[in-house]
Amino acid sequence: MKIYVLGAGSIGSLLGALLAKAGNDVLLIGREEQVKAINKKGLRVTGREEFEVDVKASPYAPDEPPELLLLTTKSYSTKTALECARHCIGTETWILSVQNGLGNEELALKITPNVIGGITTNGAMLVDWGVVEWTGKGITVIGKYPRGKSEFIEEVAKVFNDAGIETRVTENSIGWKWAKAIVNSVINGLGTVLETKNGVLREIPELEGISVEIAREGCIVAQQLGIEFEIHPLELLWDTIERTRDNYNSTLQDIMRSRRTEVDYIHGKIVEYAHSVGLEAPMNELLWALIKAKENLNKAKLGF
Amino acid sequence: MKIYVLGAGSIGSLLGALLAKAGNDVLLIGREEQVKAINKKGLRVTGREEFEVDVKASPYAPDEPPELLLLTTKSYSTKTALECARHCIGTETWILSVQNGLGNEELALKITPNVIGGITTNGAMLVDWGVVEWTGKGITVIGKYPRGKSEFIEEVAKVFNDAGIETRVTENSIGWKWAKAIVNSVINGLGTVLETKNGVLREIPELEGISVEIAREGCIVAQQLGIEFEIHPLELLWDTIERTRDNYNSTLQDIMRSRRTEVDYIHGKIVEYAHSVGLEAPMNELLWALIKAKENLNKAKLGF
Repeated sequence: MKIYVLGAGSIGSLLGALLAKAGNDVLLIGREEQVKAINKKGLRVTGREEFEVDVKASPYAPDEPPELLLLTTKSYSTKTALECARHCIGTETWILSVQNGLGNEELALKITPNVIGGITTNGAMLVDWGVVEWTGKGITVIGKYPRGKSEFIEEVAKVFNDAGIETRVTENSIGWKWAKAIVNSVINGLGTVLETKNGVLREIPELEGISVEIAREGCIVAQQLGIEFEIHPLELLWDTIERTRDNYNSTLQDIMRSRRTEVDYIHGKIVEYAHSVGLEAPMNELLWALIKAKENLNKAKLGF
Repeated sequence: MKIYVLGAGSIGSLLGALLAKAGNDVLLIGREEQVKAINKKGLRVTGREEFEVDVKASPYAPDEPPELLLLTTKSYSTKTALECARHCIGTETWILSVQNGLGNEELALKITPNVIGGITTNGAMLVDWGVVEWTGKGITVIGKYPRGKSEFIEEVAKVFNDAGIETRVTENSIGWKWAKAIVNSVINGLGTVLETKNGVLREIPELEGISVEIAREGCIVAQQLGIEFEIHPLELLWDTIERTRDNYNSTLQDIMRSRRTEVDYIHGKIVEYAHSVGLEAPMNELLWALIKAKENLNKAKLGF
């Protein structure tokens, strides 16, 4: 399959490497340092599997359209990335987002109806330019966004599974996106504010209790939007914490590296959607403000 | 005036020292280290004023009742302290609480109807046994609890003012207690979770915005309980932050010293009162859980 990976960060590089190794025609589109490193010495995967693969990389999208455009930028870059890749999105091209947070698929839908919503619980970390660590094997769930099915998506799932990326197809991808966003609202919210590993959320009774309340807040918003879940967000939450108990969540990693976080697309979007149906989401609002403050305090500490 | 100060911590020692210096018959009741130090070399005040005063101190309350029992323990010690001092509370004794948080006056009311509710914005810090720093001059507001007036309270205010403790009388002390608790819910909540000085709450726009929302949550609960304010909590909030911008709040100081905090009597009580009138207070609930978690993480760090 001809695949462009738009966003050669941690998860984009991992998926791109696996798909290329399985024989797909993969192009990684990313920032200059990463592109240079990959073009010079290939892309190396460490961690759960160890291999090197030759894969094309470029800072720009070529004119020729791919069959699949895999969207793996940070959520705050989606709009700009899609604008820059706009010219290569053909009528037959499908866009698949496996990004964290809400609102990415909606941006893709402005360009084409061929949009696949996805979540992945695989963990990856860019340890150096050209080197990505597969920190945890997980599952990937994809489906026509917001709902429905298509033969092409079955094909994508086969390509992913053949590449060693365990993937299931759903007819309710919006339900999975919301379930994952709710899980992130809890783990990334509490873990970032307290600067702790994910496992701590199950070790302190007050955090376990408040985790349920934060998740409930997101569930009520989703319910009001008519979204149903194939897996209850609480089940996904406990499972995710169990599998990642020694990890720091991605928002906290961003804070630690003084980078912008995706909090606007997790807590911010839950608050925004709550308001759109006449609800409040005060816990998400407070977590949003606390993490925004941490972004700012980080800048202050560095004297920006 | 014959005064027992029950709780010779920072604010108790400061008020006790000022009242003794003005010629009142003061006894400080506190923990052994503080009592020993005071009996050995007197009580020293530094900071906004500098003086030493000879004042009686004891770990126990004597049998003879005082005219005024000044309650200055931490809120979580009120119940035990009142039990230990029960024998000296006569029919003519008035109990005055200037403690942070809610619920202290209710405990005093179980013993006597002569209860004065108070708030003070004076800042004090125990820098050593027998040495208290007056870190900030503020005002004290006292009144019959929950509402009303009494000649004795006017007398107490005169005694306080004569001692250099700027004091006003109110007929709505419960309104002041709630206004102060709401101010603490914001400053101690956000400042503790983010581990910042009070002034930061006005420097980061997202924190200023969420401060208003947290205060509003407390105001709605108070309103539902029929409580009115002489000063709007938001006005008291901005004023308090302005006067204490370089200070760390008391809850954060407790966390830094690995001590138990008063969070159960600030955020915990607001949540409890919310439930009592069929409301939720999710922001207070989340701040409560985060601070409880910090208390626990502190213990974990110290290997308790």
